Amino acid sequence: MRAVTCQISMSLDGFVAGPNQSVDDPIGEGGMRLHQWAFATESWRAQQGLEGGERNADAEVVDEVVRGVGAYVLGRKMFGGGDGPWDQTWTGWWGEEPPYHAPVFVLTHHPREPLTMQGGTTFTFVTTGIGSALELARTAAGDRDVAIAGGASTVRQYLAAGMLDELYLHIVPVILGAGERLFDDVGDPTLELVKVIASPTVTHVKYRIVHGS
Amino acid sequence: MRAVTCQISMSLDGFVAGPNQSVDDPIGEGGMRLHQWAFATESWRAQQGLEGGERNADAEVVDEVVRGVGAYVLGRKMFGGGDGPWDQTWTGWWGEEPPYHAPVFVLTHHPREPLTMQGGTTFTFVTTGIGSALELARTAAGDRDVAIAGGASTVRQYLAAGMLDELYLHIVPVILGAGERLFDDVGDPTLELVKVIASPTVTHVKYRIVHGS
Repeated sequence: MRAVTCQISMSLDGFVAGPNQSVDDPIGEGGMRLHQWAFATESWRAQQGLEGGERNADAEVVDEVVRGVGAYVLGRKMFGGGDGPWDQTWTGWWGEEPPYHAPVFVLTHHPREPLTMQGGTTFTFVTTGIGSALELARTAAGDRDVAIAGGASTVRQYLAAGMLDELYLHIVPVILGAGERLFDDVGDPTLELVKVIASPTVTHVKYRIVHGS
Repeated sequence: MRAVTCQISMSLDGFVAGPNQSVDDPIGEGGMRLHQWAFATESWRAQQGLEGGERNADAEVVDEVVRGVGAYVLGRKMFGGGDGPWDQTWTGWWGEEPPYHAPVFVLTHHPREPLTMQGGTTFTFVTTGIGSALELARTAAGDRDVAIAGGASTVRQYLAAGMLDELYLHIVPVILGAGERLFDDVGDPTLELVKVIASPTVTHVKYRIVHGS
């Protein structure tokens, strides 16, 4: 295991999802505006099996953030699910061949048997908290990174617990005005700049999180 | 007049001042952490008549943001003052020779005669609102820029009114967790990237604000 990473798109006013999120609209009103930069890239389209798209600095970032990831941790809502017990016929938002192509550990309060999807993605449901989900992901990742893949509340929990090593923000020049903020109640972590990649539509800023000795 | 500009330091979570601001502590608890990058520069120190400091990318930005400014608009609190009528002996936070070296228009509800300070700064007190303060500043600036020099609520008012042409954010990798946010209730302005300057301690991002036709 090299690092526990997170990459996420954020509005200038600090939101990572719009208001009025629901099971049917987990990204909230206007939340899609945070992701247009990625959807426009050749890299993102290729991940979805689509042709076309831009080959630009943003595409390089989309390539970069999947490179080196050996396992993912996902919140229940990002997998696709409400608060109740699982509907066993439901396999999440991500279709028959999810874009992870790796072991994915889903945080939930309701036990469920693992799901094996096409293309190398497995969903393992973890009911024992963020620490054990991370341990499982570390083991699965071997010498590769573990990516905390959202949503916001999952990232916040790992950040507040001091378990995140890298935060790669894609700062989008949009003001959402409402929604879910990334940095509410995460304490006061020490961030050090790793690098900045500027494109016309988004500013990518990678930070290392310095852990106390 | 070329443009109505604003440059301001903001935490990663969107705050431009810390919590518990007061007349005696207008920047709020922890708010000074947003400005350390500037204080460290040779440029800022020279503006205060001090020697030393760093000559780096941040110093270039500090030089850049005063270049071309012909007049400033300032909120009452940034000048230094409470809600009540003026104490005529009080000449603001900025000392005998304020760092503006230009006409400054101070928004207030309480009339006061203009103050002429050393080094070319004049403070003119405007009780007729942000529109007339801007007009006065435009006239004073001639073919130079007008800078909206804060605080947060003043910037928010100009942004919400569609009167700002450029926003130059200095994004500091600090999470304040509380305080005064820059982007509350400013509507949904359209921002276009002008440029990004990355230094180890702060990411400077300049946006143009696109006005509807």
